[in-house]
Amino acid sequence: MYQAQLKNTIEAITEIDCRAAERCRNRVDSFVKPPKSLGALEELAIQLASITHKTKNTFPSRQIVVFCADNGVAEEGVSSAPVSVTASQAENFTKGITGVCVFARYAKAQLSIIDVGIQGKISNPDILSFKIRNGTDNFLHGPAMQYDEAQNAIVVGIEAANRAAKEGITLLGTGEMGIGNTTTASAVLSALTGIDPQKTSGRGAGLSEAAFHHKIDVIRMGIAKNNPNGHDPVDVLSKVGGLDIAGMTGLFLGGAANRIPVVIDGFISIVAALCAVRLCPKVSGYLIPSHLSKEPGYQIAAKELSLSPYLLLNMGLGEGSGCPFAFSLIDYACCMMNEMGTFSEGKIDQGYLEEIQGALL
Amino acid sequence: MYQAQLKNTIEAITEIDCRAAERCRNRVDSFVKPPKSLGALEELAIQLASITHKTKNTFPSRQIVVFCADNGVAEEGVSSAPVSVTASQAENFTKGITGVCVFARYAKAQLSIIDVGIQGKISNPDILSFKIRNGTDNFLHGPAMQYDEAQNAIVVGIEAANRAAKEGITLLGTGEMGIGNTTTASAVLSALTGIDPQKTSGRGAGLSEAAFHHKIDVIRMGIAKNNPNGHDPVDVLSKVGGLDIAGMTGLFLGGAANRIPVVIDGFISIVAALCAVRLCPKVSGYLIPSHLSKEPGYQIAAKELSLSPYLLLNMGLGEGSGCPFAFSLIDYACCMMNEMGTFSEGKIDQGYLEEIQGALL
Repeated sequence: MYQAQLKNTIEAITEIDCRAAERCRNRVDSFVKPPKSLGALEELAIQLASITHKTKNTFPSRQIVVFCADNGVAEEGVSSAPVSVTASQAENFTKGITGVCVFARYAKAQLSIIDVGIQGKISNPDILSFKIRNGTDNFLHGPAMQYDEAQNAIVVGIEAANRAAKEGITLLGTGEMGIGNTTTASAVLSALTGIDPQKTSGRGAGLSEAAFHHKIDVIRMGIAKNNPNGHDPVDVLSKVGGLDIAGMTGLFLGGAANRIPVVIDGFISIVAALCAVRLCPKVSGYLIPSHLSKEPGYQIAAKELSLSPYLLLNMGLGEGSGCPFAFSLIDYACCMMNEMGTFSEGKIDQGYLEEIQGALL
Repeated sequence: MYQAQLKNTIEAITEIDCRAAERCRNRVDSFVKPPKSLGALEELAIQLASITHKTKNTFPSRQIVVFCADNGVAEEGVSSAPVSVTASQAENFTKGITGVCVFARYAKAQLSIIDVGIQGKISNPDILSFKIRNGTDNFLHGPAMQYDEAQNAIVVGIEAANRAAKEGITLLGTGEMGIGNTTTASAVLSALTGIDPQKTSGRGAGLSEAAFHHKIDVIRMGIAKNNPNGHDPVDVLSKVGGLDIAGMTGLFLGGAANRIPVVIDGFISIVAALCAVRLCPKVSGYLIPSHLSKEPGYQIAAKELSLSPYLLLNMGLGEGSGCPFAFSLIDYACCMMNEMGTFSEGKIDQGYLEEIQGALL
């Protein structure tokens, strides 16, 4: 059903390693602290071990891949910004002045900026050109793109992950830039879950009340017009999605196929993660959340994926700007695994461990 | 009413700077991003500006002060660990192997370990001795300590902040180690707010169901026995509190008096922050939350202080182990302020700014 490279990538993805997770859990429980007192950080360390097969990890080479593309539906006035902002902000990524740039620099992460479908010609050597088409069509009047174009955009993401793996990257993050992409992300989420656009939609970069209601109507009409098959994420992406979301979907798949943990940024990113998991449920084990986006649809997708974000920052910028925060938490989880002492090393009362373990039974 | 140094410190604390906050807000709103899209990170940057009077900040010299003390009430079986763990874990802090040690190292933060009342003699040159007494008395039978001892413990914290300020520290974090201190923290919180110990108490490091109910009873009886004056935090700390909480209260006061932002760790820490704010409401502006502790009382104290924690990690370790995460977020907020480009620099469509600003009106 799917084209060769997409099909092969899905087939190459393997389950995370439960035995490595168990070994890691045993070591975490030997540290000089009450059991489970480092909460989600312990679970994160265990997840990382289950991906790498190793209890002790570091991830010094990390990259955020930012997929840039335009959305035909933007002409319906569903966004507070004009379409030209996609291209100008993509340029700004290469100048190092946007949110994701400054945070990535602090977290020592590379940025890879990909044009997967910006409208118009982009001539900037720092923007990788994998343009599938000049933006999508307006999904209010028909499919946003052809089925094969959606597959090809997914493959752009898969190849970005493969390229990163070859360059020695061991930790990936997902980002996007595309005016109108909270609209497409809500449409994809509604199509995949059957949940009404009223619940999956938000105000994006800052819509007025009237424009927000219009956005919901546009999504409802787009879904009604195109009737996407909720059991096939590629069909959904092609009919009401976007090239950026498709590219990100591919990055999640390609990351998992290369056993690289992939960090989810905000709303657009988590919808792409959901597409990837619907294409291959084994991807779940490779997904690392970051912050709870202020777009309400984030929580719906997070629930579908059984993910709990680590940060409450009320952010809604996109670009992959939330990934560096998760990179830092991953660093902290690695420090815990690599540097904390054990009870036997710490010479804590031998009775202590037994007592607290008894209390938890 | 209060002793000279406590009184003078409270009087030295000034309001944070609203004009610096306004200047910072204006700059944040000029960055290449939709207004408010960096959410809590923007508010954090603005808070930091209102403390330092400067829009652009960095906080390279940071310290976590860990107050160690024993609690007489521990003999009631309210803790899952024996009293000896306070001293042995204090020793572990100096070996660099506990949670706070490894996280502080990553965040390039110093640790200052203070014995403000560990039971027994501590002979370790890396543990500063400011012992007020050999642990407190069991508050079930009378006050935990004398009123003046509570004041003196607060002054230990004030002097720790003054010492840090003299050493060039510009960012502080609070930590503690004291078996039984979730019991004293819940007792203090109940005494300050009138909220029943059933709601302010949790399972600490891992109590069984029966031991948890016993803990609640012990706190209720301790409050009934000592009748602390909820309008005087010093009275509350002396009757049902602990020397560690008093020391941390002093660090919050001393930090504010030196215009140094002070990070709150978990439950014990936020109860101390509440004590400090009740002593001097102007302290609020200097408080920076970190993570939402798994102890249920944290949320009660956070609500009293109108604080929203940034991280959801389900942690309950204490030691100041959550402070480094907030230090990293502070670094990210500083990167945003110091490195993000503005719309005029970024050459985004001039209409964009007006349009999104219009949409937000």
